[in-house]
Amino acid sequence: DVSRDLDESLLQDFMDAVDNKKIEGFLRDLTKVPHMATSAGDEATVEYMMQHWNDQESGLDQAWRQNYVVYLSFPDPKKPNKVTVVAPNTTVLHTAREREKSYGPDQDDPEVVQPYAAYSPAGTPQGKLVYANQGKPSDYMLLNKTLDLRGTIAICRYGGAGRAEKAINAAPYGVVGVLVYSDPLDINDGLMSDSNETYPHSWYMPPSGVERGSFNTDYGDLLTPYLAAKESTYRIPVQNITGIPPIPIQPIGFEDAYVLISQLGGESAPANWQGGFNCTYNYGGPGFKPASQFSNSDVKLEVFNFAKLKNSSNVMGIIRGSVEPDRYVIYGNHRDSWVHGAIDPSSGTSVMLEVTRVLGRLLKQGRWRPRRSIIFGSWGAEEFGLIGSTEYAEQYYTKLSERTVAYINVDIAVFANATLRASGMPSVQNLIFTAAKQVKAPGLESTSVYDNWLRYSNRTSPAYGTVPRVGYLTGAGSDYAAFVHYLGITAMDFSYTYDRTKTKARIYPAYHTAYDTFDYASRYIDPGFTSHQAVARTAGNVLLRLADSLLLPLNVSDYAETLEAYLATALELHQGSAAPPQIAHAIVFLKSAVDLFRSAATQLDQIIKSSDLANEIPLKVRRINDQLMLMDRAFLDPQAFPEKYGFRHVIWASSSSGNAATFPGFADAFARASSSGLEGDWFRAHRQISILSQAINGAAHMLMDGFQ
Amino acid sequence: DVSRDLDESLLQDFMDAVDNKKIEGFLRDLTKVPHMATSAGDEATVEYMMQHWNDQESGLDQAWRQNYVVYLSFPDPKKPNKVTVVAPNTTVLHTAREREKSYGPDQDDPEVVQPYAAYSPAGTPQGKLVYANQGKPSDYMLLNKTLDLRGTIAICRYGGAGRAEKAINAAPYGVVGVLVYSDPLDINDGLMSDSNETYPHSWYMPPSGVERGSFNTDYGDLLTPYLAAKESTYRIPVQNITGIPPIPIQPIGFEDAYVLISQLGGESAPANWQGGFNCTYNYGGPGFKPASQFSNSDVKLEVFNFAKLKNSSNVMGIIRGSVEPDRYVIYGNHRDSWVHGAIDPSSGTSVMLEVTRVLGRLLKQGRWRPRRSIIFGSWGAEEFGLIGSTEYAEQYYTKLSERTVAYINVDIAVFANATLRASGMPSVQNLIFTAAKQVKAPGLESTSVYDNWLRYSNRTSPAYGTVPRVGYLTGAGSDYAAFVHYLGITAMDFSYTYDRTKTKARIYPAYHTAYDTFDYASRYIDPGFTSHQAVARTAGNVLLRLADSLLLPLNVSDYAETLEAYLATALELHQGSAAPPQIAHAIVFLKSAVDLFRSAATQLDQIIKSSDLANEIPLKVRRINDQLMLMDRAFLDPQAFPEKYGFRHVIWASSSSGNAATFPGFADAFARASSSGLEGDWFRAHRQISILSQAINGAAHMLMDGFQ
Ligand SMILES: [Ca+2]
Ligand SMILES: [Ca+2]
Ligand SMILES: [Zn+2]
Ligand SMILES: [Zn+2]
Ligand SMILES: [Zn+2]
Ligand SMILES: [Zn+2]
Repeated sequence: DVSRDLDESLLQDFMDAVDNKKIEGFLRDLTKVPHMATSAGDEATVEYMMQHWNDQESGLDQAWRQNYVVYLSFPDPKKPNKVTVVAPNTTVLHTAREREKSYGPDQDDPEVVQPYAAYSPAGTPQGKLVYANQGKPSDYMLLNKTLDLRGTIAICRYGGAGRAEKAINAAPYGVVGVLVYSDPLDINDGLMSDSNETYPHSWYMPPSGVERGSFNTDYGDLLTPYLAAKESTYRIPVQNITGIPPIPIQPIGFEDAYVLISQLGGESAPANWQGGFNCTYNYGGPGFKPASQFSNSDVKLEVFNFAKLKNSSNVMGIIRGSVEPDRYVIYGNHRDSWVHGAIDPSSGTSVMLEVTRVLGRLLKQGRWRPRRSIIFGSWGAEEFGLIGSTEYAEQYYTKLSERTVAYINVDIAVFANATLRASGMPSVQNLIFTAAKQVKAPGLESTSVYDNWLRYSNRTSPAYGTVPRVGYLTGAGSDYAAFVHYLGITAMDFSYTYDRTKTKARIYPAYHTAYDTFDYASRYIDPGFTSHQAVARTAGNVLLRLADSLLLPLNVSDYAETLEAYLATALELHQGSAAPPQIAHAIVFLKSAVDLFRSAATQLDQIIKSSDLANEIPLKVRRINDQLMLMDRAFLDPQAFPEKYGFRHVIWASSSSGNAATFPGFADAFARASSSGLEGDWFRAHRQISILSQAINGAAHMLMDGFQ
Repeated sequence: DVSRDLDESLLQDFMDAVDNKKIEGFLRDLTKVPHMATSAGDEATVEYMMQHWNDQESGLDQAWRQNYVVYLSFPDPKKPNKVTVVAPNTTVLHTAREREKSYGPDQDDPEVVQPYAAYSPAGTPQGKLVYANQGKPSDYMLLNKTLDLRGTIAICRYGGAGRAEKAINAAPYGVVGVLVYSDPLDINDGLMSDSNETYPHSWYMPPSGVERGSFNTDYGDLLTPYLAAKESTYRIPVQNITGIPPIPIQPIGFEDAYVLISQLGGESAPANWQGGFNCTYNYGGPGFKPASQFSNSDVKLEVFNFAKLKNSSNVMGIIRGSVEPDRYVIYGNHRDSWVHGAIDPSSGTSVMLEVTRVLGRLLKQGRWRPRRSIIFGSWGAEEFGLIGSTEYAEQYYTKLSERTVAYINVDIAVFANATLRASGMPSVQNLIFTAAKQVKAPGLESTSVYDNWLRYSNRTSPAYGTVPRVGYLTGAGSDYAAFVHYLGITAMDFSYTYDRTKTKARIYPAYHTAYDTFDYASRYIDPGFTSHQAVARTAGNVLLRLADSLLLPLNVSDYAETLEAYLATALELHQGSAAPPQIAHAIVFLKSAVDLFRSAATQLDQIIKSSDLANEIPLKVRRINDQLMLMDRAFLDPQAFPEKYGFRHVIWASSSSGNAATFPGFADAFARASSSGLEGDWFRAHRQISILSQAINGAAHMLMDGFQ
């Protein structure tokens, strides 16, 4: 039936059937062994996904694997990376742990990869140690005022800057190697002792815990920009890779970091550089205190990482749409972890498997087939830079761009038990609210996920008053990146998260360590798996609404609200600036573009409101849906940010100019021009305003039938 | 009615109503005065279009003007450009004509612009003259082997290289100025005398005739790449413009060219450099023969061109679609001329006005409304580089890309009376054939345009046997460029053209001169205007089929035929080369992409054949139509040709490697790598093959419902 709409009672059946015990079971299965990308454990999860998605009673219409040949970086199992303190007479005075301490069989698994910085070059730099805070440009700049950094090794805390940036920012000063660790202040609310404070006694990171990670600034396979990494695809020369550390970098646990930092000489670092150790964080002499046992000693890194082309798999599944099979709702998460990855990513994978199990049953029982097609993606090699999802987006660029209604990402499904967290384009705000109102909050019988969320995080909307705060997908933090920034597809990301009054941890403390296990997840993150269940219900509800609603549940007037807020900030920035007159002129045009967008959105809303869509000709509904679906594509400009790989969306691209809530290209160019005052920089600012005006006008036109 | 299909009897009514006398009337009106872009005459044509498209009895639903502020280049009316021969004692021995000779009131119009090279820099270079044939890179290379070109003025014939290239290619050798002229051999079948051979006695160019033109290699407004040239739009600094002459260049008539060339000293140039003058074309001493009256004299250019931002208008009109208003068929031509522009562009504008008059009557009489929307564009400032159409494409990029079914261009409607000429994507071949079979050939009562065409220009198709040859839109010769190369929209270009056994003229001889007048058109190009009528019927027939057919009349299997032919040439080129092994590997993948495209096309054709579309649900027809409409978009890659402005279509981009009928990026990269043998050049060739494979696979996927 062409005019079939969402069936609310079927939606309720879906939500009722979402089973926390099943999620627990999926998580237990998925986390039996480490499953780093392209490892034997990863292959086992591929087969696990295939088996479930091909199941006769609860599978999808079709499931398949899709391989890419991608450039990954690993430590050498036969020559582990080392960090040592070396006395002038070459005696080794201290050796950092090479593996995290074991508290059970999970950590003993020989497949646990040594902590390392993926894409760090190999090398054995040695030098006097300095403390560089978070490794931000401003940190090295300040440090360089006090010290000669040439030939030094810098130690940084995680946070404040991207992983690779800590080394990229250091190299110009002559730093030869970098160490990075999680400071107990940032990750453990200050706690440090594994005799009673840290895991296995709590969710906190044990002293030997190390956050692994990918150290690159660009996403996707590094050798195949804009091309899907098939076997015969052209690969750029390795020396042309940009955005990776130019000098060796290695992560260590805070127990070793303490040994090094507590002995540092030199002046004491500023207050906001101080971390959680019971010592003063000094800059370094460079090097250690004269009175230290390490006095005059160097720190030496031995990094033996090597890069290799590996076969990485996405597992794809599809439920074909009955009425509009050429419209796709995509739901995805990565499958690969650093170690057992119970929370990252298997909490999300378990949620996805439960969503597909329940939908698969409805499908196989003949009770349901979606109006639109639903595609599920279990992405490979996300941890190395969102590779599987990005290669997929590159391969099917036009098809996905023309047909995809929305992308839903659930990576880490549960960070903590307090509240829903949701991010996405403003057009999905109401859709998320509708879903969140229909799901009960875990542990709170009479409260909805929505009402609970409203208590934890809210804002005042000009249109609606106080509403929960939906975040923006401005970065490249998970697999939504290629969908948002490269394809311009409406996207969302869901999780359950913290009560920020209870912890200041940067992220859940076992993140990317050997402690992110089923034991950890089931004891400290979500005992009973009811937060997982709430996320599955919410994300599944959103998925069904997108797949089955006659009219796409996307609200473009809410997008106008964000554009207006961004414009207001831009106008303020401009008023306080010394911009030349042509900028003022261009900003008037930008304002008129935002006004046109608002009026086009209002008009479309009125057309929708005044139409009896179920009784209109089906092509009218399709036309409106196409307007809603494709509007975001007009925000793409492949010329806008030539220096930012894969960022084409002029509203959501990342910004380096701080947190002002405004258009990123405007913010960055304006900050630069305001600070330099150079004519060429004002030219760039003007260009960004013109790019924005054209994109916003173009998006407004996507909502309009005519041209005037 | 959602399933309404094309009404063949209405189509016949349309064709019957197309009136050669009306076309003649439109042409007479449009050519009363010169109407160079942004001149008073141009403004008069704007109003003329508006008046007709707003007519109560034969107008469109809506018509409006749309302005852009564009960068144009003009000669200084108060200080005309001069070309002189200057003796060593500074005596002026010869002065080239500043205006073309008058044979009637048209040439006397004070608004006739002096012949000039738009975008030539101003300057007064002076030096010894050399003859550089067509100004190709190979011409200057050869000349440079014989002569020291530093400080010389080069004279070139039109043809063989783009206008601007004649100066761009010269500058690296130290040439300081360039003259260009139309050689009688190339334009006049050798004829030269205006006492009985040239206009007003025939269609041939009089001795003082000069082809004006835009001397730039990039299309669109030169100051606003990728941005519509609105008033407040960011403009690049003038010194950053690329693709324009770095040294002054000026066109002259062949009567003055003869005076110069016949006196040149030095060795005689090769046979294929010889033109139609009754003298030997020498290289130049440099400079004139010792025995010449000009011996030891220089040639001096005085070019006073200046550039200015001007307001240029497109006139737009729309007939709204009844069933699918959000699908556009666009029909366009430029409105601006160099002088009176009877043939270029007013022959096409008259044809467009007749098409809109007949459709407008049907519309206003309530007899017809198209299924899809039809947009008409009367573009401004085409002569300066396709500016109006390109700025329009930039402004509405996403909207046009998502909704446009096809673009039809009729610029010069009639070059000559012999046969139809049609170019376009291979998917429109059958559509054009169908239309051409329904139109009778002018002057041949019982022959169709199709049968007549088949006699003049044909090829053997593997699928159909002998068929008329449809050309490809690989260049940027008229306003289809932005639609094909920037937007990836299915496009066509129509005209009536020469019997090549009767003339070798590069183009009709009055092209871009002051002789391209109503008198010229009606006496020598199309007396009776029946060729105009045939073009109006053919293009209108195509337009109606695209606008009204239930199923879009686009054939993707015919596209496969071209891809296969291109692939076969690529395989041959590869077999004869010393390409490294990874290229062979990549070519296998390219072949598999072409195979996938073929099988996807076959499958889609079968789905179409086996469907009773009028009785299917309307969304199925829409789905198939979307597949047909959007397939070409997958061939766009904004990264493919960073050095070619506005060229993104990997099948149709222009190629600089000669005429091999294969993928342009492949052809160019392969030619370069084969000749240099450098590893980096083979990398580039490999990259082009990967870009092609991904685009062709992507296009195949646009034809497929699923992913496997
Ligand atoms: Ca890639
Ligand atoms: Ca422009
Ligand atoms: Zn993750
Ligand atoms: Zn992760
Ligand atoms: Zn023209
Ligand atoms: Zn022209």
